[in-house]
Amino acid sequence: MTIDVKKAAELLKENDNIILISHQHPDGDTLGCAFALFYALKKLNKKVHFECQNEIPKKFRFLCNGLVNDEFENGFVVSVDVADRKLLGEDIDKKYGEKIDLAIDHHLSHRSFSPFLLLEERAAACEIVFSVIEQLGVEIDRKIANCLYVGISTDTGCFRYTNTTAHTHLCAAKLIELGAENGKINTLLFETKTKTYAALEKLALSNLELYFDGKCALMSVTKEMFRESGSDETECDGISALPRQIEGVLAGVTIREKGENEYKVSVRTNDPIDACEICSKLGGGGHIRASGCTVYGTLEEAKKIILDTVKESL
Amino acid sequence: MTIDVKKAAELLKENDNIILISHQHPDGDTLGCAFALFYALKKLNKKVHFECQNEIPKKFRFLCNGLVNDEFENGFVVSVDVADRKLLGEDIDKKYGEKIDLAIDHHLSHRSFSPFLLLEERAAACEIVFSVIEQLGVEIDRKIANCLYVGISTDTGCFRYTNTTAHTHLCAAKLIELGAENGKINTLLFETKTKTYAALEKLALSNLELYFDGKCALMSVTKEMFRESGSDETECDGISALPRQIEGVLAGVTIREKGENEYKVSVRTNDPIDACEICSKLGGGGHIRASGCTVYGTLEEAKKIILDTVKESL
Repeated sequence: MTIDVKKAAELLKENDNIILISHQHPDGDTLGCAFALFYALKKLNKKVHFECQNEIPKKFRFLCNGLVNDEFENGFVVSVDVADRKLLGEDIDKKYGEKIDLAIDHHLSHRSFSPFLLLEERAAACEIVFSVIEQLGVEIDRKIANCLYVGISTDTGCFRYTNTTAHTHLCAAKLIELGAENGKINTLLFETKTKTYAALEKLALSNLELYFDGKCALMSVTKEMFRESGSDETECDGISALPRQIEGVLAGVTIREKGENEYKVSVRTNDPIDACEICSKLGGGGHIRASGCTVYGTLEEAKKIILDTVKESL
Repeated sequence: MTIDVKKAAELLKENDNIILISHQHPDGDTLGCAFALFYALKKLNKKVHFECQNEIPKKFRFLCNGLVNDEFENGFVVSVDVADRKLLGEDIDKKYGEKIDLAIDHHLSHRSFSPFLLLEERAAACEIVFSVIEQLGVEIDRKIANCLYVGISTDTGCFRYTNTTAHTHLCAAKLIELGAENGKINTLLFETKTKTYAALEKLALSNLELYFDGKCALMSVTKEMFRESGSDETECDGISALPRQIEGVLAGVTIREKGENEYKVSVRTNDPIDACEICSKLGGGGHIRASGCTVYGTLEEAKKIILDTVKESL
């Protein structure tokens, strides 16, 4: 059942022992949602528990400094920014997949898995959670404002991407007035490259290839490159943005080696190419300009699979 | 005499034959201000003339498609985003430097040169011009909104830099509601690299050096690099942002060869280093996090001059 912000706030108010879950390989938006709600619900004196399949990337850990996870068995389970049960990750899906009470999400490709769904088309799920927290009547302090700002800024490439709306900027304005440290956060998340990441970027860009008259750019990031650069998965979120930046490219593809014959594919597109359409064909999904999927095979096979699929859309 | 937005609007209403001038090597903010005012004043049926020392960079030309410059000799002269007379450029200074009636600016380092000065501390001068146009009572159409959005987004690194305030985001929200094509503009200005620029970036980054325990990063861009990459001055505004992005760097310096023994220096800093203080010592100026100056000598001499000055601030 699709519900509105008011009903979602009511459900949260009515319940105690609230379990917040983020999607696997958590990004700024899913963590921003979870931690903002965590702090807000604690202000209402509720017991709150947070869980996620994977470790929290270093750069987002400042958001949960001092967060004390309550421990309890059963509760009201809320997923944030999760478009599909399988994006919970195996362990979390096993533990909570059947028991999610409320899903708060902004993916139009959302595959319903909960009795209650709050779904709005917003650039970031944090824009929706912001409304929910306002509706809860909780005073938004700097800590909460920072969480929401991180979600909004990371999901929009810091207001660069075409998903950014007037509403997104209004949220940012309000959050800055509420104390969000936008300058510090942006410097940390968007204007700082570790030396290891800078080295990885160089390696990745050196194998970037253009296809289909320069309309598609494809770049691969292998485990060997991680070893050589000293970089790791947790610091390379931004790398998928690079192939699309080359002039004339409509589909920018990044293939990242995950395991034996397993590749995570990121597709970023420019108008009019639909990234979600491309990735859905391969069992993935996401947004019109940024989507992902997993493909299997050797690197060459993986490239061929994704290039064939991109070609159909060009 | 320092005036407010209301008085500035009155002056513009009272006068006809208005001459708008931008600073030399025009960027998105000075052009956004000039063209937004141009279109707004035309809506009030005034004769308007625009002038600038240098050519308009290609990427900003979409802002003045269809702009018809009125030609007349004398008029009410308005400078926009000009901090100092000498930033007008030689020809423009000769022609108008003594005759500027109104300066609209956002540089706290502004050196007054006009009987009337509208100065506010904003991230972009376009934030101020936005208020002036609202005060003029002119309906802001998509064309004007695009000009103002370009100024605001370029002067804040698309809302990344620490100069971005709640007011900046509020302006962006309003402009998007008024029709500003933020998605298209951002893709063009921030998410697209020409192949020649990408090649220049690679050459420049390969000579980046760290000084003072990694607190200063210095990179030079020579005429030879422009030749080798096929790039030119008009497409490399963003390059000065790169040195400061390396983790641990407090002062990022870019030295660009301008002429025989003449180098344009860009300084970008992180808290607590004051870029304006550094550049002021060398006869330049700007903002606390981004400033510029010109130094003379061989490349090695120019490097030494700027490094010695940076060292005093570290």
